[in-house]
Amino acid sequence: MTIDKEIIADWFKLLQNDICRQLEQEDGAGKFKEDLWERPGGGGGKTRIMKDGQIIEKGGVNFSAVYGKMPEKISDALQLENGEFFATGVSIVIHPHNPYIPIIHMNVRYFETLSSSSSKWWFGGGIDLTPHYVNPAEAGYFHKQLKSVCDQHDQDFYPEFKKWADDYFYIRHREETRGIGGVFFDHLNGERNKSKEELFEFVKDLANAFAPTYRRFMKENRRKAFTEKEKQWQYLRRGRYVEFNLVYDRGTKFGLDTSGRTESILMSLPSTASWEYNHHPKKGSKEEETLKYLKKGINWLDHD
Amino acid sequence: MTIDKEIIADWFKLLQNDICRQLEQEDGAGKFKEDLWERPGGGGGKTRIMKDGQIIEKGGVNFSAVYGKMPEKISDALQLENGEFFATGVSIVIHPHNPYIPIIHMNVRYFETLSSSSSKWWFGGGIDLTPHYVNPAEAGYFHKQLKSVCDQHDQDFYPEFKKWADDYFYIRHREETRGIGGVFFDHLNGERNKSKEELFEFVKDLANAFAPTYRRFMKENRRKAFTEKEKQWQYLRRGRYVEFNLVYDRGTKFGLDTSGRTESILMSLPSTASWEYNHHPKKGSKEEETLKYLKKGINWLDHD
Repeated sequence: MTIDKEIIADWFKLLQNDICRQLEQEDGAGKFKEDLWERPGGGGGKTRIMKDGQIIEKGGVNFSAVYGKMPEKISDALQLENGEFFATGVSIVIHPHNPYIPIIHMNVRYFETLSSSSSKWWFGGGIDLTPHYVNPAEAGYFHKQLKSVCDQHDQDFYPEFKKWADDYFYIRHREETRGIGGVFFDHLNGERNKSKEELFEFVKDLANAFAPTYRRFMKENRRKAFTEKEKQWQYLRRGRYVEFNLVYDRGTKFGLDTSGRTESILMSLPSTASWEYNHHPKKGSKEEETLKYLKKGINWLDHD
Repeated sequence: MTIDKEIIADWFKLLQNDICRQLEQEDGAGKFKEDLWERPGGGGGKTRIMKDGQIIEKGGVNFSAVYGKMPEKISDALQLENGEFFATGVSIVIHPHNPYIPIIHMNVRYFETLSSSSSKWWFGGGIDLTPHYVNPAEAGYFHKQLKSVCDQHDQDFYPEFKKWADDYFYIRHREETRGIGGVFFDHLNGERNKSKEELFEFVKDLANAFAPTYRRFMKENRRKAFTEKEKQWQYLRRGRYVEFNLVYDRGTKFGLDTSGRTESILMSLPSTASWEYNHHPKKGSKEEETLKYLKKGINWLDHD
């Protein structure tokens, strides 16, 4: 028996529910508000946004399942013949109030295409962490959680997907990574000697690791005191997050290009962000220390 | 006698000086700080930034003159053979404190390419205005100033370049213009039955109209009272400005792509910007009124 796309989409819906429930529980006050939307060409989504919770300043946990005739921009980008497509996924970005709690992002997605001559399917996704202040022990913990999920499915996954995240979440014009990375993968399909069922199990396990991992960061850092100066630094780091998402992020560009639902796509942008011309943190400051960690190729497993 | 590129670059340098002097005079307190930079492949620039003046919250008036072997991204984008290039220009973005003073942008530039089989030159540029609150009389005044400069050179310029600005300064994913437009042009060369001298005179006259036009907006609105709510609206409008610059602006993308000086390019971003999920101003509010004006094809000359 092979799983079909409805089963995957249904699981993603349940995932959205579960993650929203867990984040609300950990926040203790904020609630997600839901907007249902429909896509003129077929399908739609549920956008869920939390604003001004106790811990979460702005967070989005979005589900969508869209289908229909493949937009030309998609067939061109994927170098596919024209035909039908189906895409479903969950996308999450959380911006906390406290600069000592990191920004987190997760996306898991499933794609199917059908043209006159062929049909394809694949999974994609990733989880990455963007601390305003890098805490190496926390980064080590985060990467160990991801590695542990990956290793249960394939020993090659963590090293490969960790490198992929380093390369993907990179702000080229700043020569810095967005944060401390995580895992990123795309076009995961049968070519990897894994069945669709096996890959789906991997995606499920990874997605299920999101909430407990982030809850730990919420719990441990929620009472950390911070100054106005640290808040300013958070705004500058968020400015870099905006730069990455608007200049490089393929999902964002793709969504905006293909007339996706703009408000759902741009929920990833923070409430407030800042830019300061030629800002350089003081030598020896915590801020300078953080910049040193925004590099590709750091083995975070060594940190704890 | 034909003018050569050094004469144009020198004039742009003087333009930068003059505009900085006039903006400092009108601001009354803020001063531009200068950074000189060099481009590894040839040439460089003078970046001048004002921060926290009395009127100007953040402003950049940048000069550059760069040359050398044409980067592949440039020859590809311009569909030119590989060869040498020379580019000089002045770029300005001013973000004021007071939400009743508009954001303004100007760019004037000159480009030359030389390959084994041909040489080309052209001027490009534009001025456009982004009010946080659209004041139709002010928009009318702005467009009349631009039309008056254009008409002295060619009766077709204003209508053509006004439409070009409407199309260029357009945030497609929001279905709204960045502001009330202005003029925009590119690839102005001898094909327009104008000599290089004549086109240069047009560019000079346009660039010289920048400072007096913006000074009027500074002077007239500097004492207007505003509330915290109006400041929040300004931050949201700045968010759209960031979206335009990072997602669509060719100069920005090009600069980031070709490893230009990132800090000089991104001086266009405001000190602070905000995003709010699915924000819709109240019916009948000033904010809603402004959104109605952010459309292509408005004849602002009718407003005064």
